[in-house]
Amino acid sequence: MNGAESLLRTLVGSGVEVCFGNPGTSEMHFVAALDRVAGMRVVLGLFEGAVTGMADGYGRMAEKPAATLLHLGPGLANGLANLHNARRAATPIVNIVGDHATYHARYDAPLASDVHGFARPVSAWVHSSASAKTVAADGARAVQAALQSPGQIATLILPADTAWLEADRPAPALPKPMPATVSSEAIDQAAAALKSGRKTMLLIRGAALRERGLSAAGRIAATTGARIACDTFAPRCQRGAGRVAVERIPYFAEQIVEFMKGTEQLVLVGASPPVSFFAYPNKPSWCTPEDCRILYLAHADEDGTAALEALAEVVKAAKEPLHVGPLSKPDIPAGPLNPQTAGQVIAHFLPEGAIISDEGATAGGGVHRFAAAIAPHDHLALTGGAIGQGIPVATGAACPDRKVVCLHGDGGAMYTLQALWTQAREALDVTTVIFANRSYAILNIELARVGAGDPGPKAFSMLDLHNPELDWVKLASGMGVEANRAASVEAFASLFGSAMKNRGPRLIEVVL
Amino acid sequence: MNGAESLLRTLVGSGVEVCFGNPGTSEMHFVAALDRVAGMRVVLGLFEGAVTGMADGYGRMAEKPAATLLHLGPGLANGLANLHNARRAATPIVNIVGDHATYHARYDAPLASDVHGFARPVSAWVHSSASAKTVAADGARAVQAALQSPGQIATLILPADTAWLEADRPAPALPKPMPATVSSEAIDQAAAALKSGRKTMLLIRGAALRERGLSAAGRIAATTGARIACDTFAPRCQRGAGRVAVERIPYFAEQIVEFMKGTEQLVLVGASPPVSFFAYPNKPSWCTPEDCRILYLAHADEDGTAALEALAEVVKAAKEPLHVGPLSKPDIPAGPLNPQTAGQVIAHFLPEGAIISDEGATAGGGVHRFAAAIAPHDHLALTGGAIGQGIPVATGAACPDRKVVCLHGDGGAMYTLQALWTQAREALDVTTVIFANRSYAILNIELARVGAGDPGPKAFSMLDLHNPELDWVKLASGMGVEANRAASVEAFASLFGSAMKNRGPRLIEVVL
Repeated sequence: MNGAESLLRTLVGSGVEVCFGNPGTSEMHFVAALDRVAGMRVVLGLFEGAVTGMADGYGRMAEKPAATLLHLGPGLANGLANLHNARRAATPIVNIVGDHATYHARYDAPLASDVHGFARPVSAWVHSSASAKTVAADGARAVQAALQSPGQIATLILPADTAWLEADRPAPALPKPMPATVSSEAIDQAAAALKSGRKTMLLIRGAALRERGLSAAGRIAATTGARIACDTFAPRCQRGAGRVAVERIPYFAEQIVEFMKGTEQLVLVGASPPVSFFAYPNKPSWCTPEDCRILYLAHADEDGTAALEALAEVVKAAKEPLHVGPLSKPDIPAGPLNPQTAGQVIAHFLPEGAIISDEGATAGGGVHRFAAAIAPHDHLALTGGAIGQGIPVATGAACPDRKVVCLHGDGGAMYTLQALWTQAREALDVTTVIFANRSYAILNIELARVGAGDPGPKAFSMLDLHNPELDWVKLASGMGVEANRAASVEAFASLFGSAMKNRGPRLIEVVL
Repeated sequence: MNGAESLLRTLVGSGVEVCFGNPGTSEMHFVAALDRVAGMRVVLGLFEGAVTGMADGYGRMAEKPAATLLHLGPGLANGLANLHNARRAATPIVNIVGDHATYHARYDAPLASDVHGFARPVSAWVHSSASAKTVAADGARAVQAALQSPGQIATLILPADTAWLEADRPAPALPKPMPATVSSEAIDQAAAALKSGRKTMLLIRGAALRERGLSAAGRIAATTGARIACDTFAPRCQRGAGRVAVERIPYFAEQIVEFMKGTEQLVLVGASPPVSFFAYPNKPSWCTPEDCRILYLAHADEDGTAALEALAEVVKAAKEPLHVGPLSKPDIPAGPLNPQTAGQVIAHFLPEGAIISDEGATAGGGVHRFAAAIAPHDHLALTGGAIGQGIPVATGAACPDRKVVCLHGDGGAMYTLQALWTQAREALDVTTVIFANRSYAILNIELARVGAGDPGPKAFSMLDLHNPELDWVKLASGMGVEANRAASVEAFASLFGSAMKNRGPRLIEVVL
């Protein structure tokens, strides 16, 4: 077998089941090996930003890495923004980046570039294979690196000759790294703080935002009165009826300050203290009260879920968690179609077990206020602020077989709309809701907030998408996705309700 | 004035007239300054890969840098692939990349990243402003760096507080760097070689591929019998009736070897010896005959045009250049619509002074065989092999006021289709021809060439865009560009002929 086949067999043997890719000439031996090796699903994306975002969505849900297959430095470069988001999400991903043959590098052909340089800012692990004989072992190391708790990006650069020359054999899977165990001192310290009677907030991120961790946090809250919060942009949070409700930190600095007000102790579980998303003149970056004590129960690489369960034991937590409510879906609202009513429609129809890929930006909030009482679901946020995550993450999260609702602002959706084609090709069960306000609406708010003086028409034109208006029905159907436009609550409720009852990709443009 | 305004005034004062951008919060002070400073046109792109490609197209035609305005690391990252192409084209570009305020960096907010790291692989010059007081001077240095011969990418990182804090004044423009003068020794050496009677090829790249340099080369050829050639992917080449015809090096290694056969002396004018685009098992990377003597008349940073003119003097070149022919447009062909007949239609209708932005890939060759005899035009090639250059480069090249024909394969066009929206918004005179073969056709060829054994259906599916078929008429009209589909030569001739007679953006999908 050649190096490419040894790598593919190693990846499969190490538990990697899906490869999202957009290959070129230097990856053709890897592509050709796909028919000789069972166990790897390959999903084509028409742009690498779509490819890496799909791997992020898949990894967040599957809790194991997908591979990506990217074409030299520029192919990797196109995927970097969504790898930035994935890095912030701590999603495990193994990038396979083809490169020129080792002996060809010296000729500085047009596609030659500093692939290492492109990879480094987003990758916790980068390696370029030096020989076909080592590719398999390198692949096993890449998977292990990606699985390092809480999840990392590993980038393996594969020079073309290391793919086509003869290899020995696949490499055995390396042991899966486990999250570090939290020390009993950290648990005792947090327990003492919680029992002190001071106002305490548990701020949680990572795997502890799933049912088990939340249940432990809810039991702690029932006994100690602690608040339970998560970041504005938590990678994945399990929400809905029957689950412990989590307060989500708001977006703007002054809202965060208000949210944190009175907090005397902040107990961090895989999270960092909240800071302002951007800096603004004369507004704080640091949003925790100055006299608040900060304790780390679990760092991001530690097992926050087990730590919360141990903490619950030490504080002799109640059996029943606090903040658990029954299913109470809102009715379909009356009135004009706007982010609030659209969100209520979505909350009404969302089926149990759905995934929300949320890049709704200024228009996405309508559903959140109902989050605790609607059908149990997973919420995936835009973790790194690089817009253009929502559609690809929805696409990857839908693999192999989940219902996904993607909420998206129109500005950000244009970044990686190519992922819609993959949804059609793979017949994925994704309903995309485009909030078409014809603007970078958040920037109109930000332009005022940054104190930029008295902006004129040229400035405002840079935030405006009216000229010409994007037609999302045409864009989506041009890529094979059934699409409709809704200009009223009734129309949206009919379209969205139908989408929730049926399978397959579709898109609804909500005209705001 | 604040730092942003001092920078904007400095850029305008340094001759930068256009800013292609997609700003976010951290760039709002720069955006707000646009209404206070005259002389800067701003062009919005809906994705940064479109933005940087537009700056490349503009720079190749205007011979001076545009600015880009990009949003932190991920905004820059999205633009990297087309900056890779621009680096290969030696296009002058000044990137302005907003970043978090200097004091905010320590909080590692979601959008924080290694901006320097992203910039370095494509930038000859990178600097992060440390103070509002120095931003103006940094901007002047960035423009000077971009203009370093033959043209470079300069990236200025602008932390938000250096934009919003008080500055002193704009900085004066720095002297424009001139290309280095070729030594008389290099000219004499080349002259002696040309007069030796050995078979000689002049391989030209850069500004010398415009009329003046080509005319000198044609005069040298008339006297010495030298061949005149350019790279497969020359950034810009002036072609057409009345101009000296240049042989274009073919794409595949074995074709290049055939093309170079018998060459005893290779005289390089801003070019490098031709190499294979990719490496292939058992095929050469190096394509120049082993016993060929290689002489550098002008390095890329030197004035190749002046060197050719001086060389013409020394060899006592004829007054009239060789390889100049009259206008001889091909007729509109009969027969089925294919890349050859489509190319002939384009050759027939192409108006004088047009620009061809060529990412036609496997389908683009149809027009080249007529290039020497059709209306004089500029040809812009895909310089760095990073697909998704054609539409943005066409968009930027059309600024302020040129007719552009963009030839594009369907696979590559999906990468940066967002640039079509900018064409509609700015009413640019661009006609895009999509060669819709529903595949990455080049990869079907490459899959066989790389000797990847016996590929199966999974491999072939990764190169195939049939499922579902892209509808370019919907995609383009979804972004406000008038679009039609042609399934016959007659239909294409009617649509393309009409597009050449009228102004404004349109797209024609050529069904192959």
